[in-house]
Amino acid sequence: MRVIGIDPGLRNLGWGVIEVRGTRLSHVANGICHSAPGNGDGDLALRLCSLHTQLTEVIRTYQPETAAVEHTFVNKDAVATLKLGQARGIALLVPAQFGLTVGEYAPNAVKKTVVGVGHAAKQQIDHMVRLHLPGVQIAGPDAADALAIAICHAHHWQSGSRLQAALQRAAG
Amino acid sequence: MRVIGIDPGLRNLGWGVIEVRGTRLSHVANGICHSAPGNGDGDLALRLCSLHTQLTEVIRTYQPETAAVEHTFVNKDAVATLKLGQARGIALLVPAQFGLTVGEYAPNAVKKTVVGVGHAAKQQIDHMVRLHLPGVQIAGPDAADALAIAICHAHHWQSGSRLQAALQRAAG
Repeated sequence: MRVIGIDPGLRNLGWGVIEVRGTRLSHVANGICHSAPGNGDGDLALRLCSLHTQLTEVIRTYQPETAAVEHTFVNKDAVATLKLGQARGIALLVPAQFGLTVGEYAPNAVKKTVVGVGHAAKQQIDHMVRLHLPGVQIAGPDAADALAIAICHAHHWQSGSRLQAALQRAAG
Repeated sequence: MRVIGIDPGLRNLGWGVIEVRGTRLSHVANGICHSAPGNGDGDLALRLCSLHTQLTEVIRTYQPETAAVEHTFVNKDAVATLKLGQARGIALLVPAQFGLTVGEYAPNAVKKTVVGVGHAAKQQIDHMVRLHLPGVQIAGPDAADALAIAICHAHHWQSGSRLQAALQRAAG
């Protein structure tokens, strides 16, 4: 199964695609969709449109079968929260337009799955992503976070499958 | 010139299309795109996808030439702000995908243009929208707000055109 993880952001939207075979994970690709701020009227709409185009191209190229997006709530700054929300809208929309299911995971859940604790530093996440996906070249911190989200989704999916298999055995 | 105004919301996204000829405004259509909350995984992504499909259909049907979206910042509740941001991302994206410029107006600017004061009640906006667009049937409060945003955009555009014409006369 192929999984895409997305770390939403207006300026930098990280993405990472991994392949899951049984309990084995391997890296497929990762990168960052950029949208630089301008000064023009309607600039925000153009930036969101650019993110939509870039993320659509990523999904078209790497053909993931399921997606996961970081679930962020807490932000003391309303302006930043609104901006993040707008980018997050695009991050959720694009995989749904391809018919993919979209999982949402809180940052703490992602860290707990990948690092083992809920409060991990950026550096630890980067390190653990490299351990999970040997030889990976990471495009930047946003791409590392996106790969961590994909790994988290894969683990939850595996646990779900094992549970389902166990239930089927128990029922059969 | 045909203008679409959009009042973003996740559950109810209001839209209103008006025709502007010189200083005359007339109503074309208005309505509300709905996305009901479910309980499923990936529900939010599906809701955003549904809003995208509905709004795309509206723009395809009524062919506006320019768009305006309400610019909202202030919300004390981070969860609500994030939700609004996600819906707002779709409201900005869809017209940009059709190549329309997208104006953004603060709620106070909209109220000041349509009602004459920055702090107007919902009822006053509804009343003034009906005065501006005689005979209009309004689908609901979110559609009334969307029509008010379209009227505000038309007025700003007219002032801009008059200014440009005056500058051209002065230069000529």
